[in-house]
Amino acid sequence: MFKNILIIGCGLIGSSILRASINKKTSKNFFVYEKLKKNIGEIKKIDKKIIILKKLDNKISDMDFVIIATPMSQYKRIIPHLNKHLSKKSLITDVGSTKENISKLKNNSLSKSLHWIMSHPISGSEVSGPKYGSKSLFINKWCIVFNDKNKIKQKKLVNFWKKIGSKVIIMDEKIHDKIFSITSHLPHLIAYNLIKTAQDFQKTQKKDVIKFSAGGLRDFSRIAASNEIMWRDIFFNNRKNVVSAINLFIKNLKSFKKNIENLDDKTLRKKLVNSKKVRQQILNLKQDIAKPDFGRDQN
Amino acid sequence: MFKNILIIGCGLIGSSILRASINKKTSKNFFVYEKLKKNIGEIKKIDKKIIILKKLDNKISDMDFVIIATPMSQYKRIIPHLNKHLSKKSLITDVGSTKENISKLKNNSLSKSLHWIMSHPISGSEVSGPKYGSKSLFINKWCIVFNDKNKIKQKKLVNFWKKIGSKVIIMDEKIHDKIFSITSHLPHLIAYNLIKTAQDFQKTQKKDVIKFSAGGLRDFSRIAASNEIMWRDIFFNNRKNVVSAINLFIKNLKSFKKNIENLDDKTLRKKLVNSKKVRQQILNLKQDIAKPDFGRDQN
Repeated sequence: MFKNILIIGCGLIGSSILRASINKKTSKNFFVYEKLKKNIGEIKKIDKKIIILKKLDNKISDMDFVIIATPMSQYKRIIPHLNKHLSKKSLITDVGSTKENISKLKNNSLSKSLHWIMSHPISGSEVSGPKYGSKSLFINKWCIVFNDKNKIKQKKLVNFWKKIGSKVIIMDEKIHDKIFSITSHLPHLIAYNLIKTAQDFQKTQKKDVIKFSAGGLRDFSRIAASNEIMWRDIFFNNRKNVVSAINLFIKNLKSFKKNIENLDDKTLRKKLVNSKKVRQQILNLKQDIAKPDFGRDQN
Repeated sequence: MFKNILIIGCGLIGSSILRASINKKTSKNFFVYEKLKKNIGEIKKIDKKIIILKKLDNKISDMDFVIIATPMSQYKRIIPHLNKHLSKKSLITDVGSTKENISKLKNNSLSKSLHWIMSHPISGSEVSGPKYGSKSLFINKWCIVFNDKNKIKQKKLVNFWKKIGSKVIIMDEKIHDKIFSITSHLPHLIAYNLIKTAQDFQKTQKKDVIKFSAGGLRDFSRIAASNEIMWRDIFFNNRKNVVSAINLFIKNLKSFKKNIENLDDKTLRKKLVNSKKVRQQILNLKQDIAKPDFGRDQN
């Protein structure tokens, strides 16, 4: 498919793309730009043929496919190097979780001769770093590829994601940022906030709550253990949609509170029963494992 | 240990107690009071020696251990039968998730000659019914037993839970209801509310969000699929503590919103990093499986 793939930033996602790409032979050569020493050690273990670059200099001019997989706040520092060394024959993509900001950034800062089509693979984990990457991370997961005028390059990008196992869907960045404010950004913020609330309670009430987290809290703690740089970037970049989502959430929560205070059985039960239906929809869409308690069993 | 155990209400928890009890031979005979036909069919499959009672009549007078495992809203209907047919040689317990209300109820309605010591095993699942019960549901899980003057009977109850695998801790009902408002009741309410918010968004924006739930929402959908009768009872019975927990949660969420609107990097990051620590505490306490993504993999 490609001759030279370059992955810029090789953490959980970058290293999973790398592993899947090597496995599926999507390229002849595999280059990685990574600065963290700890990460480089892990990356070298993946495959001998991986070439590690320590600078984004003229060595990258031969890359025909470049994937940016750093936190979004680093894109600004990367673009000038791409402008300087890449040419129009390269295809650039990224895996950032918000898109309106990236779209603006590339319109403003990327050289007009370069071609960057955005991607967003919907996969990840609460753990970070190349150690946790997996060649099957993308299998049967959605990857969103963003509308582009150049349909040949867009098709090439779609084929790449399909080759490493993704189901691809084409989307527009405005819609994307709205949808994911609800399905991903709000849930993460809520998980962080719930853990913060439990911590506050533990501090003021001097009661051991973490010890009894198996009744629900532990699930949220997993999501709230996600990488803070990545999530700061997401919350800040998609703040308009995230703030709307928070407002809708608070409105609904106040209404729930009222139902409880008024012992409003009918309304409360209707809401609980309605929520239940979503789980079945998610399972029907194969978006989660169809086992009680995620098949989790720590005995 | 016992001669005759009676389990009143044999859903997920009741049938798990039944299975574990048979497995550990905690009694000579095993009786179940259950009215739902569908459940009775499942219970009969567990073991031939189980005796199913269709009425709480004088047949229960020989029971030396009675476990109430129905939704809490049914306790009121059950107590008169216990008053009529049981004697002081029986030990009664329950597995309800809130305790101040049960404590009041038994003080007001239970015959003074009977002995009921409350329990709360911290285990469960989003699925309901005896079909999903398991003999190992309680292994290494906390079970809370409530302070009682009769230390001999209390010890007997503690030994029962230990025998079927639980780690037992003695607690007072006021403290219990506070702690679990934070570790269990608030997380469930938040999960229900998040799913409701996603449903509202899907309706008003006419955008398909459930399809893309793998980025976070799906985790909440599991908890929000929990039994609505059980959770209505919990929210109503513990409403004082639940409302306080909601208020603290909203206060914290508004503060998060402010941090995001103001792009307050330092405060936001500090909060995210602090939340992360709780996950490690939970794993150290063996309150969850120590695998990324709960070891879940639906490929």
